[in-house]
Amino acid sequence: MSTPPAPADPAYRRLSADARREQLIRAAQGLFAHHAPEDVSPEDVARAAGVSRPLVYRYFPGGKQQLYEAVLLDAAEELEGCFTEPRHGPLPERLARALDRYLAFVEDHAEGFTALLRGGGVAETSRTGAIVDRVRRAAADQIMAHMAVERPGPLLLMAVRTWISAVEAASLTWLDEGRRPGRAELRDWLVDHCSAVLAATARHDPQTAAALAAVGSPGPEGARRGEA
Amino acid sequence: MSTPPAPADPAYRRLSADARREQLIRAAQGLFAHHAPEDVSPEDVARAAGVSRPLVYRYFPGGKQQLYEAVLLDAAEELEGCFTEPRHGPLPERLARALDRYLAFVEDHAEGFTALLRGGGVAETSRTGAIVDRVRRAAADQIMAHMAVERPGPLLLMAVRTWISAVEAASLTWLDEGRRPGRAELRDWLVDHCSAVLAATARHDPQTAAALAAVGSPGPEGARRGEA
Repeated sequence: MSTPPAPADPAYRRLSADARREQLIRAAQGLFAHHAPEDVSPEDVARAAGVSRPLVYRYFPGGKQQLYEAVLLDAAEELEGCFTEPRHGPLPERLARALDRYLAFVEDHAEGFTALLRGGGVAETSRTGAIVDRVRRAAADQIMAHMAVERPGPLLLMAVRTWISAVEAASLTWLDEGRRPGRAELRDWLVDHCSAVLAATARHDPQTAAALAAVGSPGPEGARRGEA
Repeated sequence: MSTPPAPADPAYRRLSADARREQLIRAAQGLFAHHAPEDVSPEDVARAAGVSRPLVYRYFPGGKQQLYEAVLLDAAEELEGCFTEPRHGPLPERLARALDRYLAFVEDHAEGFTALLRGGGVAETSRTGAIVDRVRRAAADQIMAHMAVERPGPLLLMAVRTWISAVEAASLTWLDEGRRPGRAELRDWLVDHCSAVLAATARHDPQTAAALAAVGSPGPEGARRGEA
């Protein structure tokens, strides 16, 4: 550049190390949200942040992989925040609110979300897999907490884990299929899906039956009527 | 070895190229079924087949990765065979028979199945991912065929895909949790799980409702009674 940057240009402000790191993660986040990891380079991140390539490497010596993991960790925290919901009111309504936040996140990070969960990408390692698993565990823990279950037995554990994997599979199919049906319809279907799986599980598993009875779950029929 | 092998030793018979390839795949299959791919080497395959290491590389110049993909393709065909079921009798009973075969396969290939579906392994590539996706598609196609649906809309597609991912997640949890509950109980729960998800979907989606009505599905309650 022939002229020095104006002091007002935010990319060239003198930032603390933490703030600079944060700025680079934000820039990388925007890129990884809308592109598969293989299509993002540290150069792209430098350009998006309006800084030099060496500056990116100073903060992220591991280059793209380290940036990707930092962005993923950040996204994991954001997602875990989506799941947090006060413990009062009917269970299906709590679930609907958490799903609204989750599906908004999925829409905002469509390409990155798809690339990550489709698997087989170059940026995937056991570390990125562990971050994804952490989010799944956080989601399961939230559901158990809302059902007031401390030590889930194998069938309840399966019911909750399979519903979480169903939510992931549904999100991917939804993005693939042009986001049909609409987000509200998908959310309502996922809530009913959960109620139906828990009700089916309660017929096989006394713990699930007791937990549903204790929280006064209306079951799938009631859940549907309650939302109509 | 100090003495030449007896002519009756099958490992040292002169085999046709096809038979030798098949023999090596069988040996590799046994190893990959019970160990994660990173713990299997072409040397192990040679030892298990009772042949020399160079012979393994003659048939599989790509070494472990090529052996792994050959074994995976073979397993994919075996799994697709598990799903094939005559189209008569109540749907939940057809599903129960297919699941019996599938769960027997999962038990027989526990370690390999877990390593493959957990993701992030060294042997995973876009090719191995494509083989896994082929099996998922074959399972979905079978279900659509049994429901006599030619062009599933987005909600029915999601219902079936999410159930398939639920079966995978349940299988992994089941192996992790010491195979509890028993296989028959898990099968019955998965059948009920499917009926419950389809019944919940029918309330949102006319196509699913029409398909269930046409095949005379008894719904989750009836499915349970039918099996009791």
